[in-house]
Amino acid sequence: MRKRNKIKESGKKAVVLLSGGIDSVTVLYYALSKGYESTALIFDYGQRHRKELLAAKKIARKRKIKHYVVKTSFPWANSSLTNKDISVPCSRNLKRGIPLTYVAGRNIVFLSYAFSLAESIGAKSVFIGAHTQDYSGYPDCRPEFLGSFEKAACRGMKEKGIKLKAPLVRKSKKDIIKIGLELGVPFTDTWSCYEGRMSPCRKCDSCRFRIQAFRSLGLIDPLLKNISN
Amino acid sequence: MRKRNKIKESGKKAVVLLSGGIDSVTVLYYALSKGYESTALIFDYGQRHRKELLAAKKIARKRKIKHYVVKTSFPWANSSLTNKDISVPCSRNLKRGIPLTYVAGRNIVFLSYAFSLAESIGAKSVFIGAHTQDYSGYPDCRPEFLGSFEKAACRGMKEKGIKLKAPLVRKSKKDIIKIGLELGVPFTDTWSCYEGRMSPCRKCDSCRFRIQAFRSLGLIDPLLKNISN
Repeated sequence: MRKRNKIKESGKKAVVLLSGGIDSVTVLYYALSKGYESTALIFDYGQRHRKELLAAKKIARKRKIKHYVVKTSFPWANSSLTNKDISVPCSRNLKRGIPLTYVAGRNIVFLSYAFSLAESIGAKSVFIGAHTQDYSGYPDCRPEFLGSFEKAACRGMKEKGIKLKAPLVRKSKKDIIKIGLELGVPFTDTWSCYEGRMSPCRKCDSCRFRIQAFRSLGLIDPLLKNISN
Repeated sequence: MRKRNKIKESGKKAVVLLSGGIDSVTVLYYALSKGYESTALIFDYGQRHRKELLAAKKIARKRKIKHYVVKTSFPWANSSLTNKDISVPCSRNLKRGIPLTYVAGRNIVFLSYAFSLAESIGAKSVFIGAHTQDYSGYPDCRPEFLGSFEKAACRGMKEKGIKLKAPLVRKSKKDIIKIGLELGVPFTDTWSCYEGRMSPCRKCDSCRFRIQAFRSLGLIDPLLKNISN
């Protein structure tokens, strides 16, 4: 069927991987703006920044979309994201190597669940917020991986036509914030800091990239507005 | 390096997906017989046959190998394996379709974790007990999926050389039992019945295939020996 009418379009379903950070929330708003009936998939995997998880749930409730929280763990992962004995990185050079926050195969696992959910609810699209800054460091955010995963997953499922969509993959954090602003993303409700304390630490890589990106647009990260300097 | 000496061989590491059924236990024994220092990966995903899970742990302890149990769930899965409101199938025709016990993407999820673990512990091999009878029904047991998954996973990881090994993929259940007998697999400690009661139900597909396979070798399934007829 080459032409889709508006009714069919509005009935299209998607699964959106939602972490609660700027990228995944922007992707969720993007999918909703494109008329996808979206189901969010959230992971509670022992991440030190549990505020991100709360942010994800809050956003899903705000947009009144169905969401699943999968509780799991990577007990073997030697990552500062899940192991509190390892400090989070604060000075990552984007051009160099894989950061300490890398959890081996994390997105592979998350995408696998997303495809499982997609097939089960009849969704033909899975959205992920992977993007340029990520894939400079994380191999499971790179376009060549994403394409290859889509192919493999479809071979391993009943439903062969599920598409993996990463609309931000070639964007910078600055671009993403611009898109988010246009889509009405409530950035105050998102969370990025790896530390997961009451307020953003403003020192970890995730805080730095976020603050810089807002600054490059002449803005102050709304999460910092109520913090005294 | 084309030739490996014996010392290097004995130092080789593997992750083995262990469900506690005949196939995965035979694969574990196979990997151990080939000198792999094996780490077992077991999933507690709300399967109705929880005795299988206990069997897996028992086998791992018996062979004194390190094992991880990942507790997770597929809350959306419309499968008789995780949803007690759906009866387990008792008359599957091997040549026809995907059974009701199918959990969308289950092996994709399990393999993703296995690759995550493999990279984290420096294992270059992941073993899975997928085989002929499985892949007639389950798309995530088919060789074309397994090859494709290996390629995708390696693209998404730091370590590019992890191999996915399915040594039983072209074997029947009968062949597997023969191999298991040669390797000394304690079949009394394995569990296959989907129902997960005290004794095998002898009616579900998993029981039927197992009993038939033992019978075709002129044997009685050791799990049935203590049951009065």
